[in-house]
Amino acid sequence: MAEQASRRITPIILCGGAGTRLWPLSRVDRPKPFVSLNGGESLLQETARRVDDGAKFAPPVVVAAEEYGDAVASELEQAGISGACLILEPFPRGTAPAIAMAALNAAHPADLMLVLPSDHVVKNPAAFEAAVAAGAQAAQQGWLVTFGVRPDRPETGYGYIQQGEAVAPGAFRAERFVEKPDAATAGRYVTDGRFLWNSGIFLFTSRLLLAELDRHAPYIMAEIRRAVETARRRAGRLHPDPSAFARSPSQSIDHAVMEKSTRVAVVPVDMGWSDIGSWEAMHAIADKDADANAVTGDVVMIDSEGSLVRSEGPLVVGVGIRDMVVVATERSVLVVPRGQSQRVKEAVDALIKRGHTPPPELGLGDD
Amino acid sequence: MAEQASRRITPIILCGGAGTRLWPLSRVDRPKPFVSLNGGESLLQETARRVDDGAKFAPPVVVAAEEYGDAVASELEQAGISGACLILEPFPRGTAPAIAMAALNAAHPADLMLVLPSDHVVKNPAAFEAAVAAGAQAAQQGWLVTFGVRPDRPETGYGYIQQGEAVAPGAFRAERFVEKPDAATAGRYVTDGRFLWNSGIFLFTSRLLLAELDRHAPYIMAEIRRAVETARRRAGRLHPDPSAFARSPSQSIDHAVMEKSTRVAVVPVDMGWSDIGSWEAMHAIADKDADANAVTGDVVMIDSEGSLVRSEGPLVVGVGIRDMVVVATERSVLVVPRGQSQRVKEAVDALIKRGHTPPPELGLGDD
Repeated sequence: MAEQASRRITPIILCGGAGTRLWPLSRVDRPKPFVSLNGGESLLQETARRVDDGAKFAPPVVVAAEEYGDAVASELEQAGISGACLILEPFPRGTAPAIAMAALNAAHPADLMLVLPSDHVVKNPAAFEAAVAAGAQAAQQGWLVTFGVRPDRPETGYGYIQQGEAVAPGAFRAERFVEKPDAATAGRYVTDGRFLWNSGIFLFTSRLLLAELDRHAPYIMAEIRRAVETARRRAGRLHPDPSAFARSPSQSIDHAVMEKSTRVAVVPVDMGWSDIGSWEAMHAIADKDADANAVTGDVVMIDSEGSLVRSEGPLVVGVGIRDMVVVATERSVLVVPRGQSQRVKEAVDALIKRGHTPPPELGLGDD
Repeated sequence: MAEQASRRITPIILCGGAGTRLWPLSRVDRPKPFVSLNGGESLLQETARRVDDGAKFAPPVVVAAEEYGDAVASELEQAGISGACLILEPFPRGTAPAIAMAALNAAHPADLMLVLPSDHVVKNPAAFEAAVAAGAQAAQQGWLVTFGVRPDRPETGYGYIQQGEAVAPGAFRAERFVEKPDAATAGRYVTDGRFLWNSGIFLFTSRLLLAELDRHAPYIMAEIRRAVETARRRAGRLHPDPSAFARSPSQSIDHAVMEKSTRVAVVPVDMGWSDIGSWEAMHAIADKDADANAVTGDVVMIDSEGSLVRSEGPLVVGVGIRDMVVVATERSVLVVPRGQSQRVKEAVDALIKRGHTPPPELGLGDD
């Protein structure tokens, strides 16, 4: 409290989720945040770089699984990001405990926290920056700020936020949260115009977030406070106490706070966002050739169209294929029609059930 | 001539053809004869074993490309086949020169030669043996014997033999040879009943074959006689003189003799034969599960049907695929709809044109 609030925003990067739905690109030994879409930087590195302007942002806090701590540190170092703090969870407990730990660890209660999933794509960084600037103003005026993406299709895999009256420049009251609607409802939302996809990106002061968590999710806060108070801290890494952490229920920040608080605003933003939550989504955001093929790696396509074909190793040859997803790594090959690509989860579940080895080939359950 | 004719038949195994159409299972560093369909013996080994009964068959003569000599010897040794003679060609010249060399090398002009492609499948060996017994009788009576497979579909990729009047038990005059007919003609052939697929298997005495070659293809015989007379012979291997061999035109035994001779008979045989000339043909002869999938190797299929999926290395997962061919090796992956699988040749041609490396991944042109 004696310290002064920073004028810089602290990025809180949530580095969780195995990304089963992008198997075999993402898998146990390379969860989705560590995946590179184009052979260059990983999604985690791209996320950290999106908020690496030292004039606006403090060094990031990354919340990750204990076992990926070294991998996160190494990725940040490679990307030239220094001074990061790592909060390392002994096991996953959802986004509410993760964000609560970051808020409890903030230097000053008035510090602004920008919460960012580490495995999303933002193709228009300028729009992102403008939205963050608007969001920062609203957050300083006492709002829990969410960022809402204008839907261009009746997506049933996302949560929606209904936008209300303006509360600050570029920010609107969040009237209602809707979890994954059915197709008819999603269709109405697209035409209605007031509904936005919940991007999972948030901006608030740690003070307000903690107050709202205390009010709406005291059962989480009691345990998480203890887990942080008794945490082991060493060399920029915070290891919450496992037994206290284990007693906290697993919950998302949406369920714990956002859907309950009356202080939630939404900043609409058109920033070329995707959570790349399926191969279909990957195809949608990818650069495509004249035949609508999105091709990466050593791939030869003959008379084929509408397909996503990726290789990280073997030569892949597609002949006469239409609207297919083919993903090859050194160890695994996935073949699925594009429109059924959300069913990859079924495949991974089937592999786990039959005890398929070696395990690193497999994905893990998504959060 | 002083030697006595053997009562045993000498198998002449033709080990040529890269099998582009089964890429990437067959390729430069593993031509089709060296491929194993089920993880066990190679097609070459299965062929040699089909004629390894010492009571009926002499040790085989294998005609192969010079560069595969050691591989052939090693395959035969592994299969426990001893005493084989290898005729090693400096480059391919088609089946007529290959068979002519074997005939010129026969110990006695009355010896029976059973010519066998090394890359076909015969699922009913008893039927094969019975047909060979009938063919041997006809061959001893002065016929060039072919083996004709009753067509079960209007295949346009095969040659057909029209069956005439009986000339010996189980053998009929071959009235006419038809090269790869169009679909309408092939359809008529199937219903007509007198037309048989030319299996590429032949049986004759070396004396008759050489006489007919001298009559119908003297331009080949002049050069091939010289190539064999001046051949280098060492340790059971015969290396024809390259310059004489080069002067022989490249021709198939069908064009050189069978389509011209009046002494050609056909033995109809239903022996579960396939030349596995495409992935479609491979699917047709393969054992299939209840969903008509033919699966080999580390493969998981979910809600998929009518597909051929093979892996020699990576885990391959198919989800919701229909009538597809997926073939994965350590280095390459092919994905093509089953009905278009003959287009694999296009893919290989495209790869060769763009100078794709490493070259062992590629196939070579079929004969």
